[in-house]
Amino acid sequence: MRERRLAMFEEIDLKREYTLDEEISIKAEIDELGDRFAQLQQRLKKAGIPVIIAFEGWSASGKGSLIGKLLKYLDPRGVKMYSITSPSDEESRKPYMNRFWMKIPGRGEIAIFDRSWYHDWMTSGKESHSKDIEVFERQLTDDAYVIFKFFLHITKKEQSKRLNELEASKATKWRVSAHDWKQNKAYAVCKEEYDFMLEKTNFEYAGWNVISGMERDVALKEVLETVVKRLEKLCRKVEKDGIHSIEGRGIPVSKMDFELVRKPLIQDVSLDCTLSEKEYHKRLDKLQDKLLKLSYKLYKKKIPLIICYEGWDAAGKGGNIKRMVSCFDARDYDVNPVAAPDSYEKARQYLWRFQKNLPKTGHIAVFDRTWYGRVMVERLEGFNTETEWKRAYNEINEFEQELMDWGAIVVKFWLQIDKDEQLARFRERENNPAKQWKITDEDWRNRDKWDKYEVAVNDMIKYTSTKDAPWHIIESNNKYYARIKAIETVVDAIESRLS
Amino acid sequence: MRERRLAMFEEIDLKREYTLDEEISIKAEIDELGDRFAQLQQRLKKAGIPVIIAFEGWSASGKGSLIGKLLKYLDPRGVKMYSITSPSDEESRKPYMNRFWMKIPGRGEIAIFDRSWYHDWMTSGKESHSKDIEVFERQLTDDAYVIFKFFLHITKKEQSKRLNELEASKATKWRVSAHDWKQNKAYAVCKEEYDFMLEKTNFEYAGWNVISGMERDVALKEVLETVVKRLEKLCRKVEKDGIHSIEGRGIPVSKMDFELVRKPLIQDVSLDCTLSEKEYHKRLDKLQDKLLKLSYKLYKKKIPLIICYEGWDAAGKGGNIKRMVSCFDARDYDVNPVAAPDSYEKARQYLWRFQKNLPKTGHIAVFDRTWYGRVMVERLEGFNTETEWKRAYNEINEFEQELMDWGAIVVKFWLQIDKDEQLARFRERENNPAKQWKITDEDWRNRDKWDKYEVAVNDMIKYTSTKDAPWHIIESNNKYYARIKAIETVVDAIESRLS
Repeated sequence: MRERRLAMFEEIDLKREYTLDEEISIKAEIDELGDRFAQLQQRLKKAGIPVIIAFEGWSASGKGSLIGKLLKYLDPRGVKMYSITSPSDEESRKPYMNRFWMKIPGRGEIAIFDRSWYHDWMTSGKESHSKDIEVFERQLTDDAYVIFKFFLHITKKEQSKRLNELEASKATKWRVSAHDWKQNKAYAVCKEEYDFMLEKTNFEYAGWNVISGMERDVALKEVLETVVKRLEKLCRKVEKDGIHSIEGRGIPVSKMDFELVRKPLIQDVSLDCTLSEKEYHKRLDKLQDKLLKLSYKLYKKKIPLIICYEGWDAAGKGGNIKRMVSCFDARDYDVNPVAAPDSYEKARQYLWRFQKNLPKTGHIAVFDRTWYGRVMVERLEGFNTETEWKRAYNEINEFEQELMDWGAIVVKFWLQIDKDEQLARFRERENNPAKQWKITDEDWRNRDKWDKYEVAVNDMIKYTSTKDAPWHIIESNNKYYARIKAIETVVDAIESRLS
Repeated sequence: MRERRLAMFEEIDLKREYTLDEEISIKAEIDELGDRFAQLQQRLKKAGIPVIIAFEGWSASGKGSLIGKLLKYLDPRGVKMYSITSPSDEESRKPYMNRFWMKIPGRGEIAIFDRSWYHDWMTSGKESHSKDIEVFERQLTDDAYVIFKFFLHITKKEQSKRLNELEASKATKWRVSAHDWKQNKAYAVCKEEYDFMLEKTNFEYAGWNVISGMERDVALKEVLETVVKRLEKLCRKVEKDGIHSIEGRGIPVSKMDFELVRKPLIQDVSLDCTLSEKEYHKRLDKLQDKLLKLSYKLYKKKIPLIICYEGWDAAGKGGNIKRMVSCFDARDYDVNPVAAPDSYEKARQYLWRFQKNLPKTGHIAVFDRTWYGRVMVERLEGFNTETEWKRAYNEINEFEQELMDWGAIVVKFWLQIDKDEQLARFRERENNPAKQWKITDEDWRNRDKWDKYEVAVNDMIKYTSTKDAPWHIIESNNKYYARIKAIETVVDAIESRLS
């Protein structure tokens, strides 16, 4: 975490007064900056730059009305405004950052937040989700998102004056809460906490702008100035050198802060393991009972379970998943097949579509193919750049770590078969009318790239087998053996969590 | 509403007992039907038939375990299972049917419901949302959706026996609620209520199958038999004659049950109305204050407001919307630009994507283009069939009626300009670098079809100007006049609701 130090609140002069001439000149500047902001919106759209503007600050510091004024410059079709309050029931059953991930803008769009992912920290006054916040802001800015964070600062006296004014009018009385007065009473303590928050999260890629909220016009001018100048510079850069020119390189595998577990190369795994049909059915029956009971315990303890399937084409993912989920109560799980992203998904950071399908607490999500497409098919087919897939190992480890910190059990399977077995299965599919839908030209094309995929898979297993979410290589030449091993692995993972 | 009479509960023999031989033969039938069900899933996918299977019934009638067994035959990648309980906070702020609309399957997919949109009716024992249910089931089946509705029936004695058994085991005790016992005690009354519900909603296009739940295997066999036989027949038909062959014709405009308001033909509307810039700003300032205050009242009273914009290209929708929303608190509204549907949206009934963007109670949604695309661009570009757009007038009226029954205010604008004014604006856009992004080849192509569009627009206004949600034709040759008139219209609509 690189930070640049700023005297956060200390540099801000809340006592500054303005002459009439100055006020007139500020209004003129606002008009001029507003025009530029309006024009910028079309350039951002064309350049495909996604922009997030977040406002935090003291209660009654004027966030709402400032945002209202900003919005007037913009075409409402390319901007979304989110007012953040406490999470809904549904949202509190997802990881803390999930509801903010869900709100990230698409490329070329603007999202404005009235309060933000700092909500818990601001309301509790205690450090809250700082690691998750850092990951969120870094991963997005690495992906060419531009994040502005404004903190509107006013004095204790001004705050109490404004709260009193709001309370005096029938139309605005409801906007003042007990929390607002509490904050005003504990102003000095809060200020110290907020200063700590601002310093701690003043990242190079997403720094804070602390702005005086004492004079509304001055605040608006400063916000516009900050946003317009930076965005104009970025637009010029992207118009010249393309969107990738404003991306970050992220954290390379050599600098990852994860303890990795060593796994064999997939081609070195012996695939001789077999199981007879009779033995298979006997063990499956027992395991199904066991896993069903364990899944009820997860449900009661509100522990989410996430099972990830990757593997060669025709390795038997479908059949394996079918037996896995037959162990669960139908009300508890979802299977998420992952195909190519649609246009809405493509317009967002690649993890967005997986954040969208996370299970609720106590529920189970099975992913049939996963976010690892980023370092496999996308890498090999050139759907992303080298910078992108190289930083994805760390991003994915961070993503899974966040899931586990939230309480999830994450189990990842690589279904391994050898090249001969794949050929035999492809042939069988072609010859069996009931299975022909399972085989496409793309499968054959992927097969031609077997060796390249092998490299990518080994890289993936090497760099993302973290201590708490290692890859499990499932020997799948024999489907019976593979299914039992996968279920047993999940049983082990749950039991070790529950014990 | 066409119904066919059935002796609902009366025809079901709950006393029937089975010999060992019969039981063995039932098991064999289940195996055979299960295989056919598994194969059908692939045919449905190819044929693009979306299937909904809903289960209702007495508590402890075995819905959950029956669904679990059904799922085992299916590839989990093409099926979603939903367990319906009470709506979440978020869901209760949308129309009753909205959470079910959100769960409809895509073409070729299967959705299974453990309890369904009959939830309120079943738990309250009182007729609930019957009109909305009828519309939901009819609109979907008209759109080639296949809906199965099963009601699992058991005797009072059997129910109390099962509830006792569930309570006796530590592992299942939690599944029995006070409501379950209440239902058992009031069995006779409930039965009468349920019979009324089943008869009343036993639509020709989505009839009920009342099934004995006394013997689990028998129930499974009957469900499989019903589903497999009907789906096989439908697959054959679609494979031969295409998906449209199983669509319904819906309700034609001549048979709509809506009171319509007469409006002039758009070409007969005089466009001379103007407003000076000075007068515009004066009136806009006043109206903005007024509308902001009204919008707070809507917020407090939890009344949703839906504003729909349609109009010729370059009629000034964007600018009009911008001034409209500048009247609202930024936290209260969303602007939804409507472009061509993406692949996920295309796979669903066309109203799905608008259901998705409905406002919460007390909030405001502005649609920049709307569901009326169905009877304009889709009709004229041949993106749908004549049957589809012809039944859409009634479908849309029903959709809006449901919104209004829920409590929403619906205001619809057609922004009218003449052909000369459009040409002048196109030219100005081409010549103004800041506005060039606003004009595309498609705009010129649409202009060539002006006369055809005129016919479609007049049809639309004629058939969907319902008494409570008529079209407002906004004379827009003068933008100032148009903006003021639109805002005044919304002010009137809110005031007349609040009075």
